[in-house]
Parts: sequence; structure tokens; C-alpha cells
Amino acid sequence: MKNNELKKYVDKISATYKDDKGINFIDVNNLPQREKIIEILELIMEVVFPGYTGKRPVTKWNINYILGDIISQVYTDLVDQSEKALQHLCRIKKDCDRSQCRQMAQKAVDHLLNELPNIREILKTDVNSAYDGDPAAQSFEEIIISYPGIIAIATHRVAHELYKSNIPLIPRIMSEYAHKTTGIDIHPGAEIGANFFIDHGTGVVIGETAVIGSNVKIYQGVTLGALSFPKDERGRVIKGGKRHPTIEDNVTIYAEATILGDVVIGRDSVIGGNTWVKDPVPAGHRAVITHTGTAIRKPGSKKPRTKNNE
Amino acid sequence: MKNNELKKYVDKISATYKDDKGINFIDVNNLPQREKIIEILELIMEVVFPGYTGKRPVTKWNINYILGDIISQVYTDLVDQSEKALQHLCRIKKDCDRSQCRQMAQKAVDHLLNELPNIREILKTDVNSAYDGDPAAQSFEEIIISYPGIIAIATHRVAHELYKSNIPLIPRIMSEYAHKTTGIDIHPGAEIGANFFIDHGTGVVIGETAVIGSNVKIYQGVTLGALSFPKDERGRVIKGGKRHPTIEDNVTIYAEATILGDVVIGRDSVIGGNTWVKDPVPAGHRAVITHTGTAIRKPGSKKPRTKNNE
Amino acid sequence: MKNNELKKYVDKISATYKDDKGINFIDVNNLPQREKIIEILELIMEVVFPGYTGKRPVTKWNINYILGDIISQVYTDLVDQSEKALQHLCRIKKDCDRSQCRQMAQKAVDHLLNELPNIREILKTDVNSAYDGDPAAQSFEEIIISYPGIIAIATHRVAHELYKSNIPLIPRIMSEYAHKTTGIDIHPGAEIGANFFIDHGTGVVIGETAVIGSNVKIYQGVTLGALSFPKDERGRVIKGGKRHPTIEDNVTIYAEATILGDVVIGRDSVIGGNTWVKDPVPAGHRAVITHTGTAIRKPGSKKPRTKNNE
Repeated sequence: MKNNELKKYVDKISATYKDDKGINFIDVNNLPQREKIIEILELIMEVVFPGYTGKRPVTKWNINYILGDIISQVYTDLVDQSEKALQHLCRIKKDCDRSQCRQMAQKAVDHLLNELPNIREILKTDVNSAYDGDPAAQSFEEIIISYPGIIAIATHRVAHELYKSNIPLIPRIMSEYAHKTTGIDIHPGAEIGANFFIDHGTGVVIGETAVIGSNVKIYQGVTLGALSFPKDERGRVIKGGKRHPTIEDNVTIYAEATILGDVVIGRDSVIGGNTWVKDPVPAGHRAVITHTGTAIRKPGSKKPRTKNNE
Repeated sequence: MKNNELKKYVDKISATYKDDKGINFIDVNNLPQREKIIEILELIMEVVFPGYTGKRPVTKWNINYILGDIISQVYTDLVDQSEKALQHLCRIKKDCDRSQCRQMAQKAVDHLLNELPNIREILKTDVNSAYDGDPAAQSFEEIIISYPGIIAIATHRVAHELYKSNIPLIPRIMSEYAHKTTGIDIHPGAEIGANFFIDHGTGVVIGETAVIGSNVKIYQGVTLGALSFPKDERGRVIKGGKRHPTIEDNVTIYAEATILGDVVIGRDSVIGGNTWVKDPVPAGHRAVITHTGTAIRKPGSKKPRTKNNE
Repeated sequence: MKNNELKKYVDKISATYKDDKGINFIDVNNLPQREKIIEILELIMEVVFPGYTGKRPVTKWNINYILGDIISQVYTDLVDQSEKALQHLCRIKKDCDRSQCRQMAQKAVDHLLNELPNIREILKTDVNSAYDGDPAAQSFEEIIISYPGIIAIATHRVAHELYKSNIPLIPRIMSEYAHKTTGIDIHPGAEIGANFFIDHGTGVVIGETAVIGSNVKIYQGVTLGALSFPKDERGRVIKGGKRHPTIEDNVTIYAEATILGDVVIGRDSVIGGNTWVKDPVPAGHRAVITHTGTAIRKPGSKKPRTKNNE
């Protein structure tokens, strides 16, 4: 490419940055960095499941040194990134006092570090649920090293604490990283109880205002989604408001079921595979597909043998 | 392992390469390299959304230098890879004059670089659609940094320009990279209008000959697929031909809907979740599941409370 | 963060490791390392599809040197990792003689290396099926470089040999890596015949005891799963036992179909999209959705035009 051609391309593209609002990040070096967030998340995972990556041998003699090293790095980097995220929000809101951002960031990271022991406790119950619920699981170690559902829920439990501290952007970057690596899309706003198990997981979607109790088991392709969005006078959807399901304790939701809207699925209920639920389900009930069946027939024959799916 | 055992394995495996047609790449050092293509794609994304990775701070003072650096690298590497891809096609077709490959490669890359300002314009409309369509979205920056649908459509808009220039292999490597990172599988041949928004996205499949208008919104698990493939006398499917849906302007397609074959979904239509559509839908109509319902019942009881899904 | 605050966090988290069973890897430096397993898997892929990554040019002059280099590295590293995996199982079982682990590891890796020529032969049939079955496929090279289904089945065929040799953890780490990169979740226990093709693939789940014949074609979102799990007196699922479908030769299973339990789908059958099958399907039959349809209607109108989905 000749120099004048290069200049032509540069000038043409550069011109599109000038009047641009929204899709460039020029002069905004205070945005949080995606790669840095992922690095921080992976350090936190080393604290949550010490030694599981096998990157460095962890012994009872060196563990406190390793912890000290990781936690001080997480603290420094996550405060820094959180401050950038808060300042970014300030720039959007305009009526915001940016001098508070650093202090808010420190408070949020302190809260997360204080919660890590609790997060470990609850993740133990999640790993235990996976072991109890999957006939193919042979050991806890196998589950932590290889089950995508564990990566997804561990990431969620960390991201959710930052979400509760009103840190913007960062929880969502964490949850999308888990989505990318596991196919499981849990919005950091969702509230999820102990003993939670997602099997296989690809295609699972759990919305921002979903609330999930204890001992809930979910299979691949399950959506806990919103039904429709009220719109403002400009036709834009109105942000905020409870719009996703509440799942009570001991509920099992089989593959590809879709539950939409702010409905309650009562405790001890079972939601069958491929069902589509927009109404509440009382405690102890089953939701199953009706009327639908699969006909098995010889090509050319007129009368199928029909089997209802229940 | 002893030396003679190693030799035994090497000889046995090496022997399988000798008569091999199709699954080895020996002596074909002119194939495009997957890793190089991904590197090029990520450089193009830096041009499209400058600064979004946070890898290097971008300011109005340095942006033209950064652009010049990236574009000259993209030009050199992409021409090189495109030439390899074209020469690969020549080897398969046999009746092809390989001397034209370099010129065709240059023309294709020139076309793509010329289109980048337009691609940025249309991607702005896509980001805007995501913001308007998702109550959980808080800022444009959040969408670009964390929404898989934006990565998928941005990659597609780049790959599609190379597809139109008849560059083999490379557009498909790009689209499969987006598929791998987002769970969204858009064939580079698909034609997609402005203001396009894919929410969540895992499991979305959009086929090679699909045509999508403006203001179309698609949820996770939606398939725009082919119904069946005509076969030749050897029982092999015949390549080519329009075999995927046409979606007109302002259509919304909810989660897990499957639309198959070369049918038209008319403007302003809504396709309900989990529907299975093989017939045209006239403009302004809704397609909803009929007869199917979900029964909610107490185990042991005989008469289910049935609710139709509409 | 002040030093005493850091110490406080370290002590609190460290305390949770003390009484911990299951979710830490302290003092267990004999566990296999996930990153090492993936490195080994990628080396094996270089043997299976030589030169496909384009990382190093492969010619008929250097191929034996490259093979020798790769195979001796795979042998050393995989024996080492397999021994660690076997010793891990010994620690769990307790009644196990750890002195046999190294020998068992060597035998398993010898078996895998001996099988590599056969794995190549059968993968050729898989690539051929993809070419014959997808109108969009332009060359064998395109399929190997960019089709996720090929990565998934190639990984499976390798992991399955280690599974048959009773190597724990490692086959599952390999299959979950393929799941992560392709969205296709094949348990290493599944038995899969020649000429196997998975198109698109996101959301496919194939269970541990599934058996699949030759010439089988599967589309995105298909589940070959278990129906329910018998439980022991403690309410835990009982491990082991055939609980997934058997798919005979020449069967095609369209997108989103769910087949559950230890049922036989007879040869030459076709399973329609979105069907839900829990009963055997005799040879040469079709399973299609019945009763379900999609109504296309003008909003406000009372009488929908109904179309059954068959």
C-alpha cells in the first residue's frame, strides 16, 4: 500500500470518530479494562478454589504467602478498576460528585474481600449438589476442574457482590466472561441461594431480577426471562423493575424449559423439559407439556402412532 | 519411551499421511493461518471501536498514528492471507489462473478498508438498538465491552464484505471465531440490515442465504435455517441456492423460535417464543404456538389445570 | 490497604481452608493440570490434522521429525498427567495400590498412540460427512479449519480412548475444553460410529452411556440425555448404568430434538426438529411433532390461520 493510500484510509476512518457519540473510547482512558477484569477474576478464583489450576503448587506451608500476594494484588487492581467504572458512570449522569468514586470503590472491594469466606462456604454446597445430582460425577475435584456450571456460579457469586455495591460495568464484564467460557448467561443482579446446580448449561439464561432459592437444579437451555417490557413515550423500554421469575426452594427445571415474567414457582415443584411457563406454579406441583406429542410413523402411512409427552 | 518404540509410532502414523486426501495440510504452506486471521480481526475491531479493549490509551492526539499503524498491518497481512486462500481455491478448482490471486486479494482488502467507515455507521445503529431494547443496559460502553451480540454482528459485518469479494475460508474462520466466543453462529453470507440486535444470543443460527431487514430483534436460540437440501444423483446435497428465510423490517423473533426454508416473514411481524415456522407470515401478523400448553398439576391428581401458551 | 488489614483477610480466608474437604487443592500437587492437558490435546490434534494450525509449515521432508518431536512430548507429558489422575483416584478409593499407577498410565498412553492411525481413518469419514451434508461447505480444509463439529468429534475420539483405559479426570477435562470452544458437550464415555456429523452444534448434549451407529447426523441443540436417575436410600443418585439412548445407523436428528432415556432409535429413522422422544422408534420410521402448530394471525382478529408443524 502506498503512503498516500494509507493516509486516505486513515483520514476517512478518523473523520468518523469526530462527531461520534457512543461507540468510541477516545480520550476516555478511565474506562475499566476488560483484560484486567478477567485477570482479577482469575486471581479471585485461585483464592476460592486454591490450587485448582495447578499453576503453582499450594501447600499448607506456602498458602498464607500466596493468599497475601493474591489479595493485595486484587485489592489494588480492583479498587483502581472500580474507581474508573464509577467515574465513567459519573460522566454519564453528569450530576455526580466524582470525588467520592475512590472511596466507594474501596468500600466495594472491602465488602467483596470480607464476603470471600462466605462465598467459599456457599460454593461448597454448590459442588456438593453437582456431585449428588450427576451420576457421571466421580469426585469433587472433577467437578471443580471440569464442570462449566461451577465456573458460572462461582463467577456469579463474586460478580453479584460487586453488583450489590453498585459498581457499574465490572460485574457485567465478569458475567459475560463466564457466559463466553460456559454458555451460561447469569446477569450479576440475580439472587441465587445455596446448593445450586446447573448441569451441562449451554444456553441457560437467568435475568437481572430473577430470585432463586436453595436446592434448585437447572438443566441446559433453561431461560428465566422477562415477558415484555413497558415502554416510555419515546418507545424506549423503561429500565429497572422486577420482571423475571422467583424460583422457590427444591425446584428442578428440566432442559429447554422457558419461564417468563415475574411469576413464582412454588417450593418442591418440578418444571418439565421444553415447557413454556408464564403463570405461577403452586408449591409441590408439576408443570408438563400437554397436548403435544411426537408421532412415530412409517413414511407413507396415514395413521401415526401418537404418544403424548407425559 | 524407547527410541525404537517412538520410531514405530512415527512410522505407523506417517504412513497414514501418504495416501491421504483431505485431512492433512502437508506441503500446503499456502493455506491461511487461523491464528493470523484472528489477530487481523482483532486489529480491525480496534479500528471499529477505538480504545474499547483498553490495551492502549487512545487520544485525539495519537489516534491517527494508531490508525496508520493498524491499517497498514491489516492491509499487508490480510492481502497475504487472502492470496493464500484464493490460491488454495485454485488448487481445488484446477482450471484457475493463479497469477490473478494477488490482485484479487488486494482488491478485496481495498474494498473492506473502504467500507470500514460505513461499517462503523451501521454498528452505531446496532449498539443503539441494544441500548433501546434491553432494560438492563446502562450505557453504550457497557454494550460494546460486554454484549456478545455486538461482537457477533461486528464480526459479521466485516466477514460479510470479504465474502462478497469471493475470498474463501477467511470469512468463515472469522464467523466461527465469533461463534466460539459468543455462541452465535452467523454465516458470512447472510445479509443483515441496520439496527440489528441479538439479546443473550447463545444458540442463534443464521444461515448463508438468510436476508434480514432493518430494526430486527432476535433472542437466544433462534434458528433461521434450511428446510431440506435437494440432492444430486450421487445423493450429495447440491451446493448453493436461496434456502434460508427472508426477515423484513421491524420484525421481532423471540427465544428458541425456529424458522426454516426460503420463506418471507413480513414487516412488523412478531414471531413468538418456541414457534416452528415453515410458512410465510404476512406483514403485521403474529406467529404463536397453538394447542400446546403447560399443565400444572398436583402429582397423583387426574385433572390438570391446563393453560395454553398464548 | 494497610498491612494489618491484609493480614485480617488472609487469616479469615485461610481459616476456611483448614476443615475443608473437597473444594481446595492444598497439598495435592499430584492432580493433573488443566492447562497441561489442553496443551497435550492440541499436540495430538497436530498429529491428527498435520499442519492445520499453520503454526509450522509441514512438508514431506520434515514430517517425521515433527511427528517424533510431538509424540515423544505427548508420551512423556500424558503418562505423567495420567499417573497423577490415577493416584488421585487411589486417594479417594483408599483400598488402592498406588504402585500400579505409573504402569497403568503407560499402558493407557500406549493404547492411545496405537489407536491414532485408526482415529485418523475414522475422522476422515467424519470430515467427508460434513462435506456431503452441508451445502455451504466448499472444501475439506474449510471444514477442518472452521467447523466446530469436527473439533468436538476429534476431541471426543481421543478422550474416549483414555476413558476406555479407565483414566480418570483427563478425558473429562478434554471433553469440557471442546464443550467450551464449540458449545458441543459430548461425555467421553459415549460410543460414536463412523461418518458422524454435527452441524452448527451449539447446545448439543450427548450423555455418558449413549451409543451412536454409523452415518448419523445431528443438528444444533439436540440432547441425547437421561430420563431420571434411580436414587439410593440417602436420596443420592446411583452412579453408573446405561441411561442414555442408542442411535442406530443412518439416523438424522434435527435441531432441538430431545431424546431421553435408554431407548433405541432404529436404523434409517428421522427424528424431527423440536420433538421430545422417550419411546423407542422402530427402524425406518419418522418421529414428528403432532398437534402442535403455529398460528399466524392479525393482532385483534379472533380466528387464527393454524398450520400444523408437519
